[in-house]
Amino acid sequence: MFAPLKDLAADLAAGKTTSEKLTEEALERIADPAGEGKRIYTEVFAEAARAEAKASDALRAAGIVPSPLAGIPISVKDLFDIRGKVTMAGSVARKDEPAAGADAPAVARLRAAGAIILGRTNMTEFAFSGLGLNPHYGTPKNPYDRATGRIPGGSSSGAAVSVTDGMAAAGIGSDTGGSVRIPSALNGLTGFKPTARRVPTDGAFPLSWSLDSIGPLARTASCCALLDAVMAGETPKPVAPLPVKGMRLVVPGTIVLDDMDEHVAKTFEAALDRLSKAGAILEEKSFEWLLEIPASNKAGGFAPTEAYAIHRELLSRKEAEYDPRVATRIQGGAKMLAADYVILERRRTEIQAVANAATRDYDAVLMPSVPVVAPSIASLEADEHLYHTTNLLMLRNPSLGNFLDRSAVSLPCHEAGTGPVGLMVVGETMGDAKTLAVAAGIEAALAG
Amino acid sequence: MFAPLKDLAADLAAGKTTSEKLTEEALERIADPAGEGKRIYTEVFAEAARAEAKASDALRAAGIVPSPLAGIPISVKDLFDIRGKVTMAGSVARKDEPAAGADAPAVARLRAAGAIILGRTNMTEFAFSGLGLNPHYGTPKNPYDRATGRIPGGSSSGAAVSVTDGMAAAGIGSDTGGSVRIPSALNGLTGFKPTARRVPTDGAFPLSWSLDSIGPLARTASCCALLDAVMAGETPKPVAPLPVKGMRLVVPGTIVLDDMDEHVAKTFEAALDRLSKAGAILEEKSFEWLLEIPASNKAGGFAPTEAYAIHRELLSRKEAEYDPRVATRIQGGAKMLAADYVILERRRTEIQAVANAATRDYDAVLMPSVPVVAPSIASLEADEHLYHTTNLLMLRNPSLGNFLDRSAVSLPCHEAGTGPVGLMVVGETMGDAKTLAVAAGIEAALAG
Repeated sequence: MFAPLKDLAADLAAGKTTSEKLTEEALERIADPAGEGKRIYTEVFAEAARAEAKASDALRAAGIVPSPLAGIPISVKDLFDIRGKVTMAGSVARKDEPAAGADAPAVARLRAAGAIILGRTNMTEFAFSGLGLNPHYGTPKNPYDRATGRIPGGSSSGAAVSVTDGMAAAGIGSDTGGSVRIPSALNGLTGFKPTARRVPTDGAFPLSWSLDSIGPLARTASCCALLDAVMAGETPKPVAPLPVKGMRLVVPGTIVLDDMDEHVAKTFEAALDRLSKAGAILEEKSFEWLLEIPASNKAGGFAPTEAYAIHRELLSRKEAEYDPRVATRIQGGAKMLAADYVILERRRTEIQAVANAATRDYDAVLMPSVPVVAPSIASLEADEHLYHTTNLLMLRNPSLGNFLDRSAVSLPCHEAGTGPVGLMVVGETMGDAKTLAVAAGIEAALAG
Repeated sequence: MFAPLKDLAADLAAGKTTSEKLTEEALERIADPAGEGKRIYTEVFAEAARAEAKASDALRAAGIVPSPLAGIPISVKDLFDIRGKVTMAGSVARKDEPAAGADAPAVARLRAAGAIILGRTNMTEFAFSGLGLNPHYGTPKNPYDRATGRIPGGSSSGAAVSVTDGMAAAGIGSDTGGSVRIPSALNGLTGFKPTARRVPTDGAFPLSWSLDSIGPLARTASCCALLDAVMAGETPKPVAPLPVKGMRLVVPGTIVLDDMDEHVAKTFEAALDRLSKAGAILEEKSFEWLLEIPASNKAGGFAPTEAYAIHRELLSRKEAEYDPRVATRIQGGAKMLAADYVILERRRTEIQAVANAATRDYDAVLMPSVPVVAPSIASLEADEHLYHTTNLLMLRNPSLGNFLDRSAVSLPCHEAGTGPVGLMVVGETMGDAKTLAVAAGIEAALAG
C-alpha cells in the first residue's frame, strides 16, 4: 500500500520521491502477472500516466503545485467518462457505443488538481451489486485471506483492491447503495459517500439518478476529505479531527445490528468500547422509522426502476452480453407503476425529515458498514440464491444512507491480521465536512 | 362586477365605502335566487365574512390596515383547506373525510392581509378538466350569452363567475393545466399562473404535485399582482406597466395557433395588430421544440399519473360517487410505468432548458389562451367524445406553461359585447414580476 496522501504530498514536496517514481511503482505492480492487476484494472493508461507524472515533476520543479494531490497516482472506476474512450462500466455490452467526448467533471477536476490517472478499475457490471463479482473481467481477490479467494465487495471492487495492493494511492468510485463503502469495509479501507449533490455525477454512467453519488476509497478520512474537496470543486483544507471526548454518538437498535457474524459483532462492540473509554457519549436507541425505508421500497425501489429506464434499450438489443444476475436485477424494475414511484418519492422526503429530526442532537450515527466478513467468491458464483441474499445483506446498512442522502464514512475498526470490519459514521445531509471531522476523530481514537 | 382592487382599496381608504358594505353587496348577490350564486359557491361563510368585515372596518378606523387587500371580499376555490371544514374539492366522495386542521397557507396569508373570505367556489371535481362541468353542484353559466348557457371553463369555474357576477372582488384558484387561465379567458377576466414554487400548495387538495400552482382570477394584471404577492408571502408593490413600445414579443408558429375558431383568430390577430401599432416588436417563429412536450407525455403524463396516485385509495372505495368523466381521466394514470415516469421527469428538465434558451431574448411569448369561445354546457354534457376532445383543446396551450413551469397571464383582448377571448402572456420561470409588468403594459395598450 502507498502511504496516506498527505505523507505522499510531504515526500513529494521534500524531494524524497517524485511523481514518476510513484507512478512507475504503481505501474510495475499492476503489470506483475503474479498480482491481481489484470482483474483490478480494465484498462491501464500507462503512457498517459507516465507523461502526466513527468509533467507534474517538471511543474513542481518550476514551483507549480496545483493542489496537495499533485503528482499522486490514483485509479478511477470504469464508469467514468474519459475523453476518447468508450465508457464500459464493467460491461462488454457497451463496446459499440460512442467514445466519451470529454472527461467526467469529477475526473477533470482531479486532473486539474494534478492527480495522475493510472487507469480504470473493475467493478460490478453497471454498478448493480454490492459483491463485486464480474464474469467479464474476473473478480479481484480481497487482500485478506487471498488463499480462500474472498470477494472484494462492490460495486467499486477494483477501486478498493487497487489501493490495498499498492496499484494506486487512492481510488475513485461511485456509491448508489454502498458501492464505495462496502468494498472499503471488506478490504480495510476508508471510503466516503458524500451528500449526492456535492459532487457532479455527470459523465459517470448512471445506475440510479435518485441515489448515485461519487466518492473516494483511500487509507484515511483525511485522504478522503482531500479527494472529495477536489471532486466537489472546493478548496481542499486539512481535516481537524473532532475530539472523541464528549462526542455524542448513537447506534440504532433497529435493522442495522441484525444478522452480524460473530467476528463483526465482537469487533464492532470492541470499537464502541474503545470510543466509550475515550470519552464518547454512546447511546443505543431504537429508530423504528428506519423500518419505513424498506417498507416504502416494497412496490419497487429507485435503483432497479431507474436502472431499467436507463438500460431498457440496450438490454433489449444485448441482453445476452449482460451478466445474467445483473440483467435479472435490472429487469426487476420493469414493472413498477409510476403511481407507486411518485408515492415513493414523497415518502422519501417525509422519511428524510423524520430522520433529520431523530439524529439532529448527535454528532454521528454509528453502525457496522456490513454485518459479515467477505465470503468466498466461489461460494457466491456457485449459488444464485446465496448471491442474492448476500448481496441484499451487504447493501442493507449502506443503502439507508443513500435513501436518506446522508454523508457517511466507512472506516476500518478491526485488529490487524483479522478479517476487515468497517465502522460506518453517518452524518447529516450537507454536513459532509463535519462527518469527515468526526470520522477522523474516531479513526485517531481507535488507533490510539 | 366590483371595481378593480386598487379602486376598492382607495374607496375604503377614503371612507367612500366600507368592508361591511362590500361584503353585504356580495352576499346579497350570492343569495339572489335569480342569479348563479348557488352554482358558483359550494359553501358561503356569510356570518364569518360579516364578522371579518366588521373587524376590518373597526381596525381601519383605528388606523390598522394590514395590506391593500384589507376589507376586500374574495372567494376561494373549493379545494383549499379552511380550518374546521372538510375539503371537498368539488366532489361528494370526500364527505366523510376529516375536517382540515388549519387554513391552507395561501388562505391564511390572504386573511392575515385583511381579505374577507366569502366562501368556497365550485370547480371541476378534483380540478381534473378544463371545462368546468360539475354534475354534483351544477355548472355556473358563463356570463357571456347566458341564454345559451355556455361553459365557464375550468377547473376554477366558480372562481371566475364569482368575479364576473359581482359575488367577489377576486377569486383564488389553482392551475395544473390551465385551471386559472382557461376560466379567466372564457369569462373575460385576467388570471395569473405563477411559477409553481412561489406560492405554497400545501393545504390545497392536489391534482398533480409536479404541475399544481395557485393563482388569482381578477379584473386586471395589477389585481393579480396584489393577490399573488400576498399568497407568495411577498410585500405587495404596485405594478409598473412595461411600455409596449420596443417590447419584444414572439408568437410561436407551432401548436398554439392551430384549430382557432374564426372569432378567436380575428380577435387575436386584431390584438397583435394593436400591439404592433403601439410599437411592440412582434415576431412569429416556429418553435419545433414545443412538439416535444406532447411527445414526451405519450407514455402517460404527470397529471393523470399523480392524480391516480392521490385517488387510488378513495377511488377504490367510492368510485360510484365520482363524476364518471373525472374517474375515467384519473384511471388513465393507472398504467404508466415508473421507468417511463422517470424518463418524463428528465425530458421535462431538458425541454425546459431548450425553451429557456429559445425565449430568453423576448419580453414575453404570446398566444391565444384557448383557441375557441366557450361552447354550450348542454352540448358537452350530451356528448362524451366532444367532452374529451374539447377538454384537450382547452388545456392545450395553457398546459405547455405548466410543463415548462413558466409564469403566465391570461388577459382579455376581445371587443366588449363579443365572445370573451384571452391573450396569454407567457414569461420566464421565476420571472413572475416581469411577466405581470409586461401583461399590465399590454393591457394598457389594448385598452388605449
